[in-house]
Amino acid sequence: MTDANAPLDSILSHVDANIDQSLDRLFTLLRIASISTDPAYADECLEAAQWLSAELNGLGFDAAVRPTAGLPMVVGHQRSDSAPNVLFYGHYDVQPVDPLELWTNEPFEPKIGEENGKKVILARGASDDKGQLMTFIEACRAYKAVRGALPLGVSILLEGEEESGSPSLDAFLAANAEELKADIALVCDTDMWDEETPSIITMLRGLVADHIEIEAASRDLHSGMYGGAARNPNQVLAEIIASLRNPDGSVAIAGFYDDVPELPADVAEQWERLPFDDSAYLGDVGLSVPAGEQGRSVLEQITSRPTCEINGMWGGYTGDGFKTVIPGKAGAKISFRLVGNQDPQKIREAFRAHVRALVPADCTVTFHDHGGSPASVVPSDGPMLRKALAALTDEWGREAAIAGSGGSIPIVGDFKRKLDMDSLLIGFAQTDDRIHSPNEKYDLASYHKGIRSWVRVLDALA
Amino acid sequence: MTDANAPLDSILSHVDANIDQSLDRLFTLLRIASISTDPAYADECLEAAQWLSAELNGLGFDAAVRPTAGLPMVVGHQRSDSAPNVLFYGHYDVQPVDPLELWTNEPFEPKIGEENGKKVILARGASDDKGQLMTFIEACRAYKAVRGALPLGVSILLEGEEESGSPSLDAFLAANAEELKADIALVCDTDMWDEETPSIITMLRGLVADHIEIEAASRDLHSGMYGGAARNPNQVLAEIIASLRNPDGSVAIAGFYDDVPELPADVAEQWERLPFDDSAYLGDVGLSVPAGEQGRSVLEQITSRPTCEINGMWGGYTGDGFKTVIPGKAGAKISFRLVGNQDPQKIREAFRAHVRALVPADCTVTFHDHGGSPASVVPSDGPMLRKALAALTDEWGREAAIAGSGGSIPIVGDFKRKLDMDSLLIGFAQTDDRIHSPNEKYDLASYHKGIRSWVRVLDALA
Repeated sequence: MTDANAPLDSILSHVDANIDQSLDRLFTLLRIASISTDPAYADECLEAAQWLSAELNGLGFDAAVRPTAGLPMVVGHQRSDSAPNVLFYGHYDVQPVDPLELWTNEPFEPKIGEENGKKVILARGASDDKGQLMTFIEACRAYKAVRGALPLGVSILLEGEEESGSPSLDAFLAANAEELKADIALVCDTDMWDEETPSIITMLRGLVADHIEIEAASRDLHSGMYGGAARNPNQVLAEIIASLRNPDGSVAIAGFYDDVPELPADVAEQWERLPFDDSAYLGDVGLSVPAGEQGRSVLEQITSRPTCEINGMWGGYTGDGFKTVIPGKAGAKISFRLVGNQDPQKIREAFRAHVRALVPADCTVTFHDHGGSPASVVPSDGPMLRKALAALTDEWGREAAIAGSGGSIPIVGDFKRKLDMDSLLIGFAQTDDRIHSPNEKYDLASYHKGIRSWVRVLDALA
Repeated sequence: MTDANAPLDSILSHVDANIDQSLDRLFTLLRIASISTDPAYADECLEAAQWLSAELNGLGFDAAVRPTAGLPMVVGHQRSDSAPNVLFYGHYDVQPVDPLELWTNEPFEPKIGEENGKKVILARGASDDKGQLMTFIEACRAYKAVRGALPLGVSILLEGEEESGSPSLDAFLAANAEELKADIALVCDTDMWDEETPSIITMLRGLVADHIEIEAASRDLHSGMYGGAARNPNQVLAEIIASLRNPDGSVAIAGFYDDVPELPADVAEQWERLPFDDSAYLGDVGLSVPAGEQGRSVLEQITSRPTCEINGMWGGYTGDGFKTVIPGKAGAKISFRLVGNQDPQKIREAFRAHVRALVPADCTVTFHDHGGSPASVVPSDGPMLRKALAALTDEWGREAAIAGSGGSIPIVGDFKRKLDMDSLLIGFAQTDDRIHSPNEKYDLASYHKGIRSWVRVLDALA
């Protein structure tokens, strides 16, 4: 029995009464090892997409698994002719789980644990992004159960390649622009300001990801026979990597900071006012000294300043014991977080030119492009943003913050450029969720109050 | 029917007539995957030891597989009361075979191939050291077959941990010093000067091998959340590695060259006279520019000068695709080739002090000792050396060279220090044998004429 005029509180109560069932559904999704970066898990990715499509159809969406050149999308619609239409975006793929030996539970056997006196959901993807996307789906479920209908038009787009650089997204958005366009996008892939303070992100860093390989000798050499005379690509690569940063922590590539703006004065003032504990943020992961640009706060270093990170490097013998080899090649995965108007292609070319200038005789360098996207800045003064901030403030009892995020969510830029659509980035993850790391978790409170938050946000936007 | 007075030529003819059977026996040994650096191959190492012990017993040696704390030794004796006694040393263990995909044949399925118009034996260990040690055993077999006896007293010591730093050798030599002591040691683990010029090595570089790990955050981090503020151990490690060498190719560790002598004038003169083609040596492996100390010849760089090599390094995500991770730790395997009077422990401590001074706040460094040995200089004017040089000159029709070797053969120093015994380093490997690399080979001529060479050397020393 549904009641089209049931009050908001009865929907929120329904969420509370059915949280165990909501959790069961999330666990079912978490059990699917949908790792998109490794082709060995293509079947699991498809399985996750099919499960989500079936769930959406069960909630009255016109939903389907939609093929791409890579892993499929899930798209579902319950449109409204009168009310606003929103497009919700999330991703069902997850990061790899290595190193597996550091997990205390099986990454794809979710369980409830307890940390620091609070309950947490432990699994790969619990936070990034299965837990987050399910907050929205469960909010829709509560509306359907109590009122029989959603309060506004809702389309849902769930991607399966977010963790592997979204290679199929451009073509899919271009081919389905009319179908996907809505009044605003809702993206659930971000953190709260802290455990008690909700936030909407209006500033996102961009990303340039590159893979480089240095080749020297035509084969691996014995260091007894060639050591001293043969160029060692490990050494060459290390010298290149070392050259990328200045002693003051800044990036040493020519022109890197050309298009980096200073933080606007009003945002800087708000950030000084909001609670942010540098020591706690670093201390959570065993660190104490900010390693980035000197003279910048930790908050600036992780959100409003660009970076260069060596995400992986390898060369030679890395197994047990010792092998006195001079390898034929060595490689690294290097990425840059971008801000302001930094152009991904310009930064990539500047990086490659910097590297090429350092490659010595007898070595060759090859580059592989692993994608890039500019930073995104979402207008922070729209009426929908203000309504959503008020709804979050109501749910959490704390003034919702307008914030920046250090991570890249390229979809926000794509929505703006390809569909001329702004995004509201509303997420319930916490800094200590260990996303992309062993023992990823999502606070049970993030899940439960996340569902309740979306119920309120949808009501406010309707 | 044996003839105790059969002439040398008839023994050499016997070698020629039975080369196919000699090859079959080598192939049997090569089929045993006796990789000592990987504990998964312990059974294969034992199998190789047992096979060799049985072969030696079949040739009249009093031989046995002798346990150690690690992989076993094989020791056999046919002593003489009147003639000189020699101790032959070789090793039955081999290097790992990765990267396996670069092999054109299975590494433990030996076969005869053809390269540059000559026949070669293709297998892991074909050259280092199974092919080499079998030249000696087959020479003994020819003596037994033709004359019924060896011309002098022979003991044989075959090690199973040479490729993994010889962890059990010290204790074994100490416990069996009296049993193993002979008038001179014969060590077959070195190269010829070139394909046509035999040589005896009188100068060997030492080795220090160390493993370092840099740890920063207590877990892997997401570069979107922490990038900019968190210390990246890949970057730290790269900066440390880059700091180990000066722009002129020399090693930048304080005091590193303190105990490095200049090459004696007479040796330098001999080396200028002997054929050595820098371009061909480097060109064989796709290189053209000597990468070591400026102002030193390639021959010096690879034999009489010390080095620092990065044998392996790793950190972060190295799989397919891309992962925007800041790893919690990174590591490297680093080794130094030593010359002259460089002290392994002093060099190791100088290296570690250099590294410790560069480790920034929030990072810790740990070191693991992978063994070390000083350089060895064998007296080049002894009567046995001169007899052996003459025997090699007879076999190859070229004046045998006195040479240095860039690789480390710690056993030579151990024999000197522990058993007060000099060594003759006589080997038939070639520079292009690809030892420690995919597609290792041993020239069929090295094997055949190597056996003949030992027949002549034993005759000369008797």
